[in-house]
Amino acid sequence: MNTIQYLDITRPTLLIDPHRVHANIQRMIEKARRAGVRLRPHFKTHQSAQVGEWFRAYGVQAITVSSLDMAAYFATHGWGDILVAFPLNLRQIELVRRLSESIRLGVLVECAAHVEALAAAVDHTVDVWIKIDSGSRRTGLAWDDPQQIVDLARKIRNYPVLHLRGLLTHAGETYHSQHPAEVVQRFQRSNLRMNEVRQFLEQNGIDGLEISVGDTPGCSLSNDFEGVDEIRPGNFVFYDAQMARLGACRETDIAAVVACPVVATHPERGEAVIYGGAIHFSKDGLQENGQTLYGWAVLLTEESWSPRVKQGALVRLAQEHGIVHLPADVLATLSVGDLIGVIPAHVCLTVSALGVYRTLQGEWIETLVRA
Amino acid sequence: MNTIQYLDITRPTLLIDPHRVHANIQRMIEKARRAGVRLRPHFKTHQSAQVGEWFRAYGVQAITVSSLDMAAYFATHGWGDILVAFPLNLRQIELVRRLSESIRLGVLVECAAHVEALAAAVDHTVDVWIKIDSGSRRTGLAWDDPQQIVDLARKIRNYPVLHLRGLLTHAGETYHSQHPAEVVQRFQRSNLRMNEVRQFLEQNGIDGLEISVGDTPGCSLSNDFEGVDEIRPGNFVFYDAQMARLGACRETDIAAVVACPVVATHPERGEAVIYGGAIHFSKDGLQENGQTLYGWAVLLTEESWSPRVKQGALVRLAQEHGIVHLPADVLATLSVGDLIGVIPAHVCLTVSALGVYRTLQGEWIETLVRA
Repeated sequence: MNTIQYLDITRPTLLIDPHRVHANIQRMIEKARRAGVRLRPHFKTHQSAQVGEWFRAYGVQAITVSSLDMAAYFATHGWGDILVAFPLNLRQIELVRRLSESIRLGVLVECAAHVEALAAAVDHTVDVWIKIDSGSRRTGLAWDDPQQIVDLARKIRNYPVLHLRGLLTHAGETYHSQHPAEVVQRFQRSNLRMNEVRQFLEQNGIDGLEISVGDTPGCSLSNDFEGVDEIRPGNFVFYDAQMARLGACRETDIAAVVACPVVATHPERGEAVIYGGAIHFSKDGLQENGQTLYGWAVLLTEESWSPRVKQGALVRLAQEHGIVHLPADVLATLSVGDLIGVIPAHVCLTVSALGVYRTLQGEWIETLVRA
Repeated sequence: MNTIQYLDITRPTLLIDPHRVHANIQRMIEKARRAGVRLRPHFKTHQSAQVGEWFRAYGVQAITVSSLDMAAYFATHGWGDILVAFPLNLRQIELVRRLSESIRLGVLVECAAHVEALAAAVDHTVDVWIKIDSGSRRTGLAWDDPQQIVDLARKIRNYPVLHLRGLLTHAGETYHSQHPAEVVQRFQRSNLRMNEVRQFLEQNGIDGLEISVGDTPGCSLSNDFEGVDEIRPGNFVFYDAQMARLGACRETDIAAVVACPVVATHPERGEAVIYGGAIHFSKDGLQENGQTLYGWAVLLTEESWSPRVKQGALVRLAQEHGIVHLPADVLATLSVGDLIGVIPAHVCLTVSALGVYRTLQGEWIETLVRA
């Protein structure tokens, strides 16, 4: 269980399997190619210039990020077409201006104040996407009130420096589906609504708009991208327990696991205590048999890691402690000082919490967080 | 709402009020003095050498940390008596050895493997505390099976380099209490159990042991520390919404708030969208009227911040987005680009997620996370 290549792991350490990462990237690229849509992968999951290069090797040139700081980081690393898929933060408008001078920058707007501040700040053309709420009720202009979308589109077109590129949504409701068919249904409903909005805009003289949609569950499970111009999945690069639980990937597609030192064992209650807590995993969960789990337990092997240990789960998190539920036969083989693997519930948050990770071959991968 | 001193805040930023921090420290020091117990504050909450100096100015010399890396950080900053209140991580035993050469180091053990590895590694005396599970069922030797505690104590005393200092617990069950009286009852029950264990050890010829207990709720609410030698609260330095909800502090004792840019408003559903998500707050919550909240909304003022906005709450978190529920009259005064304050549900995780913070006067405070 504790092979040579893990001897230097002394604290919670995120390991990624490059073979699985490459397979995940290739699969999504192939899917986008077949569907005739642009893949603009969301880099908020891996947050790493090094992993970005793996995408670039497959010809990816346009990316999505979730903050202006992340845009600046990837611009520094040679990315020239970056969409910030987050409502425009007016307090960083100076950074927007600077980025627009060096790259093809895309931003989201959803109100007149966004448009006015943006137009006042930039001298170089910026791609502007109108954020549409197609049902998730997070943010954006409501798809079912299209007149306000027309009004905002007209306002944008008043400013020559703003290039109205299209309509963008994130059907976040797919994450809360009960089964894969529901994911697909919600994703396609969202796409249909986006096309209704585009049609309404065309009827009002606003044409030529692209439609950009997000979300790993929908992009992984749907094969129908009718009316969609661009997809922006992110999580698929690593996948995680939430995605496998939802049926958006197979367990064998998951490319990330956190190696954690075992610091105590409690055979009488079927639990091991690990060094690996809320500050390492963050604290997002998934539901399984009425219980909230923060990850799935696996065993580290010579080459990679085992399938999920039956019933093995990270069931509690304190700041630095994790409590892992394990069957008696597995617990019997574990000693304090051993490592155990945990597939995180939500890998995007775990990457951000740890700030750095390494490949199974021992290469360290740096991210924006610790750049 | 957006006064001069906040103009340079462009992204989610944790602000602390030094006056409240000093008052919180003084109150706990005074309480410990009156009770005749040693205050060994847990530095995992603030994680900062600078805030550590504020404690030192009041005469605090002994501290608690939650990892060996945190011990190394504070040792570098001049702390000479550090207890690592986390089960001994055998994979960092070399760091234990190095720390033991330069400071008075305390560690927790709860099994023979811990004791043997420790004794084999160190040349300088180490304070050894036996971790007791007094009811929280996180980790430690069960209080109600004292014979195994006797056995471990005898084993420790076999090694001259190990100084058996005492028995340590963390009554984490206080956090899950429904009201202040229940906190006090659980805290005192835990202390009673610890004294029963000590008495059992004395009857078996093992005497002179100290009792060290933790937890901010218990230490804040209880006035009875009968039989306790040392207390290790940490969260009290800042407090947070969980602690106020539990009644462990007043809302006006809370010394930390996250200033977040407003990036969208949705008056029709009583919500603002903020730049401030799960990677900034982490994702611990508190229950209020059957709903999980991740923080309480306040308004930033010239000097500090307002009382909690009535019904104002951070109700949803995505990676970078937060959804804040606000009453109509407050929403009507908010524009995109303004800042709003959020008292985090669990400040320890927020400090760790953000890695840096600043005082209301604009001084930046660095932590271990970004050291």
